[in-house]
Amino acid sequence: MTKLIHAMIRVFDLDRSQAFYADAFGMAESHRLEFPTFDLVYLKDPASGFEIELTFNKDQTAPYTHGSGYGHVAFCTENLEEFREKLIGLGLEPGDIKSLSEGAVTRARFFFVSDPDGYRIEVLEQAGHYA
Amino acid sequence: MTKLIHAMIRVFDLDRSQAFYADAFGMAESHRLEFPTFDLVYLKDPASGFEIELTFNKDQTAPYTHGSGYGHVAFCTENLEEFREKLIGLGLEPGDIKSLSEGAVTRARFFFVSDPDGYRIEVLEQAGHYA
Repeated sequence: MTKLIHAMIRVFDLDRSQAFYADAFGMAESHRLEFPTFDLVYLKDPASGFEIELTFNKDQTAPYTHGSGYGHVAFCTENLEEFREKLIGLGLEPGDIKSLSEGAVTRARFFFVSDPDGYRIEVLEQAGHYA
Repeated sequence: MTKLIHAMIRVFDLDRSQAFYADAFGMAESHRLEFPTFDLVYLKDPASGFEIELTFNKDQTAPYTHGSGYGHVAFCTENLEEFREKLIGLGLEPGDIKSLSEGAVTRARFFFVSDPDGYRIEVLEQAGHYA
């Protein structure tokens, strides 16, 4: 009856954000709507079909703020170390690789990286539930 | 090389949030990890396979806050009026149906509804780019 199709974030510098999501995660522009006071740009993830909608408000004069509620979007990838090195090669600053264990069982291996507006992005090793 | 798999939000009342996403959007629990200080509950959207990860911090004493940056997740649905009536029938308070036009062309018909923590959710009519 319903289908989850995108997540929307507001960005301060549209070109910078588009370059980040294209270079780091291979997300290309799939759709754009332009209005006098704002633009909407949709970036599609080729693997899932899910999109990130970038809202660019043309009169925004200060960076957007982050509350304590919203967390992140997450990508999975086959080789966590290799992908992390790729991001470093792009001049980004991914955090250290960490693990989450339930008792003796490792449930997740992951790191975080921030996009140009400071939105957190989790990158998980493709394993178990994360595929 | 990467696949976008989920979006994470922190919730103040886990049962209340799970009931909301199940009743309103048919999202069932697909995975759960339990730790001494927090639980992670994954809710899967059957149509897209995309998940919303609910983080429940057991020591959280105040509602989470919302910054100006993060916007919403969006669902599409075939019959916007019918789905909006369904939400009202569940005791929810969806906003009015609105349109977004570029010149003379209607690009989107949609309304918003809030989840129990105040995260905004857009519901778009399945048409054009939104499918």
